[in-house]
Amino acid sequence: MNFASDNWAGAHPAVAQSLTRHADGFAAAYGASDLDKRVERRFNEIFDREVAVFFVGTGTAANSLALASVNRPGGVTLCHRECHMIEDECGAPEYFTGGARLAPVEGELGRIDPHLLRQEIKRFPPEFVHHGQPMAVSITQCTEVGTVYTLPQIRAISEICREHQLPLHMDGARFANALVHLGVTPKQMTADCGVDVVSFGGTKNGCWCAEALVYLNPERARDLPFIRKRAAQLFSKTRFIAAQFDAYFDDGLWISLATHANAMAQQLALAVKESRSVRLAWKPEANELFVILKRKEYQRLTDGGAKFYPWNPPHAFHGHMADDEMMARLVTSFATTAEDVEQFAELMN
Amino acid sequence: MNFASDNWAGAHPAVAQSLTRHADGFAAAYGASDLDKRVERRFNEIFDREVAVFFVGTGTAANSLALASVNRPGGVTLCHRECHMIEDECGAPEYFTGGARLAPVEGELGRIDPHLLRQEIKRFPPEFVHHGQPMAVSITQCTEVGTVYTLPQIRAISEICREHQLPLHMDGARFANALVHLGVTPKQMTADCGVDVVSFGGTKNGCWCAEALVYLNPERARDLPFIRKRAAQLFSKTRFIAAQFDAYFDDGLWISLATHANAMAQQLALAVKESRSVRLAWKPEANELFVILKRKEYQRLTDGGAKFYPWNPPHAFHGHMADDEMMARLVTSFATTAEDVEQFAELMN
Amino acid sequence: MNFASDNWAGAHPAVAQSLTRHADGFAAAYGASDLDKRVERRFNEIFDREVAVFFVGTGTAANSLALASVNRPGGVTLCHRECHMIEDECGAPEYFTGGARLAPVEGELGRIDPHLLRQEIKRFPPEFVHHGQPMAVSITQCTEVGTVYTLPQIRAISEICREHQLPLHMDGARFANALVHLGVTPKQMTADCGVDVVSFGGTKNGCWCAEALVYLNPERARDLPFIRKRAAQLFSKTRFIAAQFDAYFDDGLWISLATHANAMAQQLALAVKESRSVRLAWKPEANELFVILKRKEYQRLTDGGAKFYPWNPPHAFHGHMADDEMMARLVTSFATTAEDVEQFAELMN
Amino acid sequence: MNFASDNWAGAHPAVAQSLTRHADGFAAAYGASDLDKRVERRFNEIFDREVAVFFVGTGTAANSLALASVNRPGGVTLCHRECHMIEDECGAPEYFTGGARLAPVEGELGRIDPHLLRQEIKRFPPEFVHHGQPMAVSITQCTEVGTVYTLPQIRAISEICREHQLPLHMDGARFANALVHLGVTPKQMTADCGVDVVSFGGTKNGCWCAEALVYLNPERARDLPFIRKRAAQLFSKTRFIAAQFDAYFDDGLWISLATHANAMAQQLALAVKESRSVRLAWKPEANELFVILKRKEYQRLTDGGAKFYPWNPPHAFHGHMADDEMMARLVTSFATTAEDVEQFAELMN
Repeated sequence: MNFASDNWAGAHPAVAQSLTRHADGFAAAYGASDLDKRVERRFNEIFDREVAVFFVGTGTAANSLALASVNRPGGVTLCHRECHMIEDECGAPEYFTGGARLAPVEGELGRIDPHLLRQEIKRFPPEFVHHGQPMAVSITQCTEVGTVYTLPQIRAISEICREHQLPLHMDGARFANALVHLGVTPKQMTADCGVDVVSFGGTKNGCWCAEALVYLNPERARDLPFIRKRAAQLFSKTRFIAAQFDAYFDDGLWISLATHANAMAQQLALAVKESRSVRLAWKPEANELFVILKRKEYQRLTDGGAKFYPWNPPHAFHGHMADDEMMARLVTSFATTAEDVEQFAELMN
Repeated sequence: MNFASDNWAGAHPAVAQSLTRHADGFAAAYGASDLDKRVERRFNEIFDREVAVFFVGTGTAANSLALASVNRPGGVTLCHRECHMIEDECGAPEYFTGGARLAPVEGELGRIDPHLLRQEIKRFPPEFVHHGQPMAVSITQCTEVGTVYTLPQIRAISEICREHQLPLHMDGARFANALVHLGVTPKQMTADCGVDVVSFGGTKNGCWCAEALVYLNPERARDLPFIRKRAAQLFSKTRFIAAQFDAYFDDGLWISLATHANAMAQQLALAVKESRSVRLAWKPEANELFVILKRKEYQRLTDGGAKFYPWNPPHAFHGHMADDEMMARLVTSFATTAEDVEQFAELMN
Repeated sequence: MNFASDNWAGAHPAVAQSLTRHADGFAAAYGASDLDKRVERRFNEIFDREVAVFFVGTGTAANSLALASVNRPGGVTLCHRECHMIEDECGAPEYFTGGARLAPVEGELGRIDPHLLRQEIKRFPPEFVHHGQPMAVSITQCTEVGTVYTLPQIRAISEICREHQLPLHMDGARFANALVHLGVTPKQMTADCGVDVVSFGGTKNGCWCAEALVYLNPERARDLPFIRKRAAQLFSKTRFIAAQFDAYFDDGLWISLATHANAMAQQLALAVKESRSVRLAWKPEANELFVILKRKEYQRLTDGGAKFYPWNPPHAFHGHMADDEMMARLVTSFATTAEDVEQFAELMN
Repeated sequence: MNFASDNWAGAHPAVAQSLTRHADGFAAAYGASDLDKRVERRFNEIFDREVAVFFVGTGTAANSLALASVNRPGGVTLCHRECHMIEDECGAPEYFTGGARLAPVEGELGRIDPHLLRQEIKRFPPEFVHHGQPMAVSITQCTEVGTVYTLPQIRAISEICREHQLPLHMDGARFANALVHLGVTPKQMTADCGVDVVSFGGTKNGCWCAEALVYLNPERARDLPFIRKRAAQLFSKTRFIAAQFDAYFDDGLWISLATHANAMAQQLALAVKESRSVRLAWKPEANELFVILKRKEYQRLTDGGAKFYPWNPPHAFHGHMADDEMMARLVTSFATTAEDVEQFAELMN
């Protein structure tokens, strides 16, 4: 019953096998091997267009380098107040950009409110140097609270970006889970919606360590090879990342794994709905559940062997919580089993 | 016959198996797992003292974060003119330190000349703000030209460091190869010689991607957890690095692999000495050979299936090279076989 | 009738004369002249203790270098949501710290709410690397909306700083105006209240360009000479800043000028209170008035020759504003005359 | 007899008067005043074309922001080994560019050797990320050893820049002294020779603190307003810099002052040539003399009231110096008098 996080899971057997399969022999270092090139081409197929792909080691690296590549002096990236870049990356995006700022925008359930986004951008009149200047908008898909932007919602934001000539970044640490929830293609969720650059995450969905920066318009990526190397994110034996993605894409494994994780979350949600002691804070859409329960109940459940963590309620959360209640997060993954869910359901009752 | 680089080799089977063995199950993310903790403790044994250990993804990251942790305003790190940090890290050390400078010091065969080091440090009178201020000395072990500092040579440098209260960093991308050449213990080559922080590399010696920053004095590492996270080098599934080091240290595997690589280099050197067309530029000490040969011969050898690369002669190289000659580098690794060497020997003759 | 800003005023005649008086002759460059040293000592008298003083060229430089001197990896400085560093310095504090973040804290009328400050600091559990770590608290005295922290209010904040071992910075761009309002000494407003470092501004109060970083505890300033030089803020002919401060302090000129500016603001406030068309947004305390008036009235007043600017209402402003109303700011300075105020009073009626 | 440096001199009376003349009244802050605009237009006349001009406070700021404006990831600026940016700016250029490197190029008498420049650039094959990439070439005019690039010498360098599409920066801290020596116009010495951006210094030639970044092609300066503000170099009362330049340009004052300084240097050189105890290290071209003398003689001269400093011989200095001899630098300025020179001549004999 481990619902702590999807990065507590290990590697899917197919990913592990691919690593072992590619362990032998010599291959050109620093991304020049045949395997690297072949897997890069697979991203073209996945995104149904020519994209520029850069493997990196962590999601924080992908996000930070994405911003570094669109950096401007006095630059400000507009993102959701509770997004991962603001909350959980120890200032890496600011560090990698030499001080560009992340400006928080409010919005319900983890999604940027387009109206407030427009207002926030207006706070920066062009040529008014004192405030700095917008340089990008970043959305998180899935959001930090487990919800998913619909395609029209993404488009509403990219239209604002286009009006202000701002690139749109998508932090896709849980890209696959969002995709599965929406039932669309990568192209539909990105290029067709006006997304310019994606932090494409594989780690949380069954890889060891496989993240990629994907530029929908390769022109924008001109400086990326230098940006990545300067940031110590060019691995010498890059084939070890390529090999993971290779297995990840084979036979749609990545979609299967996310489908499973999301399904487990739905089953968990059903169990919660039927429980007397725990309730959903909001409707889960991908592989994360946010629940409200009494502190004593949380204690009882964790004592009973369920692993999951308290969560600070989002600023814009308007649901009701009693004084003796708390919010918590449960995350499912490719490694979650139906038995885990059933066991938890029993434990709740 | 692939002598291109030790990072063209893959992973040793034991490392690959360890990864697979730890693929299953849930483990605390971000370095908090039992495996992480256990492997961190193994570093204490390896270094025969309590050390602070931080896993990172690349050697460039290890070097850059080492410098970031001893950073000073207007800071200058003294290192060999042709060291990896200056030549081959795309400015990462400067980037991660927000602009601290690498000041080149000359010295024969890749080793800093202590006399010149002292002179260079003297160029920075304390309190004279215009020149900046020394912040560290960094040595590369093995050096960029495959030589190894002897213990007295390291001590000569660390004495200068102590006089000026400068920390001494060792870029140990090929730490094991140096250790094996000297026939000493890690403690003898570091703490006993006055080294303060080591970039401890496993990648070039049979791992996929396993590098560690090792602080001989844990006090110095107080800020490292934040420095690493801010630099996007805290992996969520860190156990994948820990698992590599676990196998790497089991039964002295790391020493065996380096011993093999160094032995292959010695055999290769013998073959070169016996050849009529290729000669050694200087005596190899670890797993890298630098040779001089006619351009036509280089062409012939590579056409014949040998993979190795030209190398720019070091600035302080005083050997003889004819106009139609060039320098080249041959690197051996755990994956080099005696057959590779024999085949190359035959090809030369 | 120019109430645009106190930095629209020029230089007080005594300051201009001092510059001219020191124009002749040779003097050691880079802060080593007798005049520099003498004026530095005058700061000791002003602050009634030994302080470390560093002249810089702009208030933004003073603030940014203050933060650079207390920088930490993943560092977060807590400051008021609408403070100058966040709103009007184009990201300079983030730039000079290599990406340390400014975390906005709410509070009424420009003052940090101590309760919310404590809450915000608690969001950063020690050792939890993901969120980063607090590195300083910064208050603005006078605040961005022209109010002044009382001594107990400063103490309430410095106590929180002490609990968490955080240095307390005071952005004193309008230090003199605050001092005069409170009727206290510099020591009382800083060292006695637990302030650690002050951006001491002279520019807005009658100098051309005279700002100083003042460390109440000189120990903290050890690296400042290098921090300042690296930031291009060590002027070669520093005597030109020293000469300004020399005149500024002579016969308490700086206090007289601020007293005058504040008095003009009070007269202006009186005139506003008596007017039918303009009202105070809140009680002015130093040399800035924030008023509410109809847009048409603003137009009429500026057409009539009054120079002053619209102002975005602070986030925490709970006063009433009708749809056709706006907020505006009027600033007085040493150069404001009673005639200016009278003329404006007549124009309003 | 003060020959310590041209920044030990104060301000020329006309500059001081201009400051006083503009001390009164209100003027738009942050560079928007009529005076600012008018003086910016004077730069168009001076350079005989439309240029983009940005006032800053120090030469180090001008140089650093020039590089920041042409920054690239892994960027390397090629400049003379002993130039001011490398030797005397405490790493400011690296700091302001977030770690871009200054790569030293040799050359006699302070001038970059075009042949070596070409060689150095070739060390960075395009697309080879490990070494980083060239981003600019910077020359110092006058050089750090008081010599002046001729127009053909500048052109030889700018041709190499053009071949590699690198912008050419000129550190013109002593721009006027070079101009006077060459007897050419600013346009001839910059735009006509392929210079892209100039650090135009007024401070060393009779101003208090007046430096300007001049872009010969205003297109390149698009981001400069933000770059300058972010670097804390946008002064609120910028008119105090504008006023200095206004007087500086009136009636060709700047040319007169540099002409005087250079003439004083020539007289000093004559005196040195006639002396028995001091000799020229090389021919002075502008307002700096480098001399060789016995240490005892240096002591005698400074005891006699002459103020000047020892100087480390340039790396490429091939002149003869005996063991008991040293090198020293003498600098003349607008404030140097014929009496100073005569007195020094007498003292030498």
